[in-house]
Amino acid sequence: MSKLSHIDSNGKARMVDVSAKKETNRLAVAKGAIYMAPETLKLIEDGGVPKGDVFSVARLAGIMSAKKTADLIPLCHPLPLHDVDVDLAADHNKGCVEITASASLYGRTGVEMEALTAVSVTALTIYDMCKAVDKHMKIGDIRLTYKSGGKSGTFEAD
Amino acid sequence: MSKLSHIDSNGKARMVDVSAKKETNRLAVAKGAIYMAPETLKLIEDGGVPKGDVFSVARLAGIMSAKKTADLIPLCHPLPLHDVDVDLAADHNKGCVEITASASLYGRTGVEMEALTAVSVTALTIYDMCKAVDKHMKIGDIRLTYKSGGKSGTFEAD
Amino acid sequence: MSKLSHIDSNGKARMVDVSAKKETNRLAVAKGAIYMAPETLKLIEDGGVPKGDVFSVARLAGIMSAKKTADLIPLCHPLPLHDVDVDLAADHNKGCVEITASASLYGRTGVEMEALTAVSVTALTIYDMCKAVDKHMKIGDIRLTYKSGGKSGTFEAD
Amino acid sequence: MSKLSHIDSNGKARMVDVSAKKETNRLAVAKGAIYMAPETLKLIEDGGVPKGDVFSVARLAGIMSAKKTADLIPLCHPLPLHDVDVDLAADHNKGCVEITASASLYGRTGVEMEALTAVSVTALTIYDMCKAVDKHMKIGDIRLTYKSGGKSGTFEAD
Amino acid sequence: MSKLSHIDSNGKARMVDVSAKKETNRLAVAKGAIYMAPETLKLIEDGGVPKGDVFSVARLAGIMSAKKTADLIPLCHPLPLHDVDVDLAADHNKGCVEITASASLYGRTGVEMEALTAVSVTALTIYDMCKAVDKHMKIGDIRLTYKSGGKSGTFEAD
Amino acid sequence: MSKLSHIDSNGKARMVDVSAKKETNRLAVAKGAIYMAPETLKLIEDGGVPKGDVFSVARLAGIMSAKKTADLIPLCHPLPLHDVDVDLAADHNKGCVEITASASLYGRTGVEMEALTAVSVTALTIYDMCKAVDKHMKIGDIRLTYKSGGKSGTFEAD
Repeated sequence: MSKLSHIDSNGKARMVDVSAKKETNRLAVAKGAIYMAPETLKLIEDGGVPKGDVFSVARLAGIMSAKKTADLIPLCHPLPLHDVDVDLAADHNKGCVEITASASLYGRTGVEMEALTAVSVTALTIYDMCKAVDKHMKIGDIRLTYKSGGKSGTFEAD
Repeated sequence: MSKLSHIDSNGKARMVDVSAKKETNRLAVAKGAIYMAPETLKLIEDGGVPKGDVFSVARLAGIMSAKKTADLIPLCHPLPLHDVDVDLAADHNKGCVEITASASLYGRTGVEMEALTAVSVTALTIYDMCKAVDKHMKIGDIRLTYKSGGKSGTFEAD
Repeated sequence: MSKLSHIDSNGKARMVDVSAKKETNRLAVAKGAIYMAPETLKLIEDGGVPKGDVFSVARLAGIMSAKKTADLIPLCHPLPLHDVDVDLAADHNKGCVEITASASLYGRTGVEMEALTAVSVTALTIYDMCKAVDKHMKIGDIRLTYKSGGKSGTFEAD
Repeated sequence: MSKLSHIDSNGKARMVDVSAKKETNRLAVAKGAIYMAPETLKLIEDGGVPKGDVFSVARLAGIMSAKKTADLIPLCHPLPLHDVDVDLAADHNKGCVEITASASLYGRTGVEMEALTAVSVTALTIYDMCKAVDKHMKIGDIRLTYKSGGKSGTFEAD
Repeated sequence: MSKLSHIDSNGKARMVDVSAKKETNRLAVAKGAIYMAPETLKLIEDGGVPKGDVFSVARLAGIMSAKKTADLIPLCHPLPLHDVDVDLAADHNKGCVEITASASLYGRTGVEMEALTAVSVTALTIYDMCKAVDKHMKIGDIRLTYKSGGKSGTFEAD
Repeated sequence: MSKLSHIDSNGKARMVDVSAKKETNRLAVAKGAIYMAPETLKLIEDGGVPKGDVFSVARLAGIMSAKKTADLIPLCHPLPLHDVDVDLAADHNKGCVEITASASLYGRTGVEMEALTAVSVTALTIYDMCKAVDKHMKIGDIRLTYKSGGKSGTFEAD
């Protein structure tokens, strides 16, 4: 039967020992979105507000949060990340900002939590900066879309 | 025209000065969910794994993250929170764990970002603990459902 | 029957809501000790090592740790502490360094965890600085000795 | 004469340069206990309170604190820990909860401070959760019981 | 004779007890500069690099660092800051970026360390982003230029 | 044309991917100073205040801050530093305390930001401890004086 890796045989939560894992190049990509009213999206893009700034603050918050993943997620290993990147794109048809984050490391354990954390905090920061004009924003679709490195092989999803 | 409160007249990001705001009781409630395969949900609940533990770790991570909100969200004010609570419920019809977080404070500024951060990190922690068995989980529906205190009045949503 | 304040009626861990508590002057004093070989104690005090430094580093570590209490203890409230102090005294008869820490705040909740955390981290820092010469040190006797402010009244113990 | 490794020849505190140390498997185990009234111990175990929760919160706090060791202990090196585990056992004869923590790393420096920090914060968290019913708890017996890896060889103690 | 406030009568470092201080509006402004080659300054402003971004990252880093002041400066009090702002201006005559930071709080203690920390970390961030093209940058002139609130009255300097 | 390494081709801030860099011994030395009134300098050194303490607190703050560099500087990589050292010297002719910090690592990326951060926070801590007697102190001359390791070769400056 399959097994939750963070729960030991007595049901106690624990970190997973990674000493025996091989060092390889690890890459993870995660995506998500924050949905908002058309006017909010427009305001971010050009409504008297230099487009760059909301996006620039949010991207930076996302990058910084990836470095705090082990501080936020109780059973994550502290990792000396080699790279983090966050991309943002306004999608007027869907009425959202699409967020893509990637993290990479040459090391013993995967970095999907770092990518997912970056997406989440980027979205929360956009929420924070726009909440005065729109209280109905919704953050969603946060998922892993790519993962390579490590013995479980390459994972890809939409 | 409406205005993003964190952007000043020159388009620079900044904290909003709250010195002049009145101290009142502030309460915020946020919700969200993490969607997963039926077997993953079952495994959390009873599959050889004491139900309480995944939920207990995730709830605690959520509570602790609310205290780090100002460290994660660049323009949030540091707040001496008075209360944080996180609730989890498995919903087998929707195939998800539903997350509800509340935060409260007697102070000068709202606590919706604290509640939303708690929901997000609770979801990320469930993801982390289950990712060995399910890489297709999705975090979504993160939104504010209640807010009271402060001059903008009471807000309610589903 | 008496009740653990951090566990709600369903057995879930939670922060205790302090919004309704009165602001008063809160003071807590905690004590503890680190036991070591006579030569280690002597080395700290005068063996080629300026006495002040081990004590000075350890005291500072203790003071700084009190400010991180809410980051370490999951259900502690973040508090804008007004004062922290740490005192150290070598006791050659008992073969230990005695540690006393106090914390104070004008606020809604007690500061005993801050004083106890300061004692603990002060002791750990002494351990760290002396472990190259003595691996048999033992940290003990960490307890609350004084607490005032709040509705439970004044507490005193040895 | 033996020498405190963190104090240089002028008596100034400093980190110890570990660049020249060899990478090996490092393991450390530390123990400690928190003494309390029999009713408090009973209350944790079964008194209306699901046993798992106090222990579960405390264990998690201990694990998370190990990752913060370099942030708490001024001269500790930041380490990408590979594993941390915390065990708790109620001892009714001694009237205490016994705490055992282990930490491991494939790296250049020992992890005893990480294990000792985990024990200390686990104990402080139990204290915090029970302090409303018992102000006379005492934390003690915190010591290193096992250490392997590195040129100083294997260390064992009770 | 005048007295260093953080040193007690025995020469030990300590936090200053602020419980007895009055709550008032506290404001502090600090300035500083980072000197660099003319081409580096030009590159920041318009050399293929959108001007806003280096400045935007650096400003945000400065704002966030003000919230970490009590974590960095050992004897600073943790403060729930009400406002932080950072301004940047390129000065081609002096060959530098001039940095101005302000911090404010309605509270018991001054916020000059928060403003000075924001200036310092803003400068360090500019250094980090430009160091690949200019290793001779110099950070200087960091000083307090304005302070009001508290019993020592208003302070002004260039 | 030369290029700011942290800005990608679209002008967005990002971390620089260091996965492909070689691991080598990296060393960086930075210097700086804090200028003050002669009486302030004298007070630190011998005016009723044990000389060691202001210096000891400031040095320790500098060492600890080097470990937080990646938390302060948004695009810095988290690094498991192998060594940090801070030296202080009073210069009565120049009316300042001169600060020298070094950082080292066997790893993939340089440690100049760690050394520069240590100098900055050491200076800020001296400022904090002396500000009650001297509000006209000025922090300056913060620069890199030595760097070795990595493909850009050895750098030396005054």
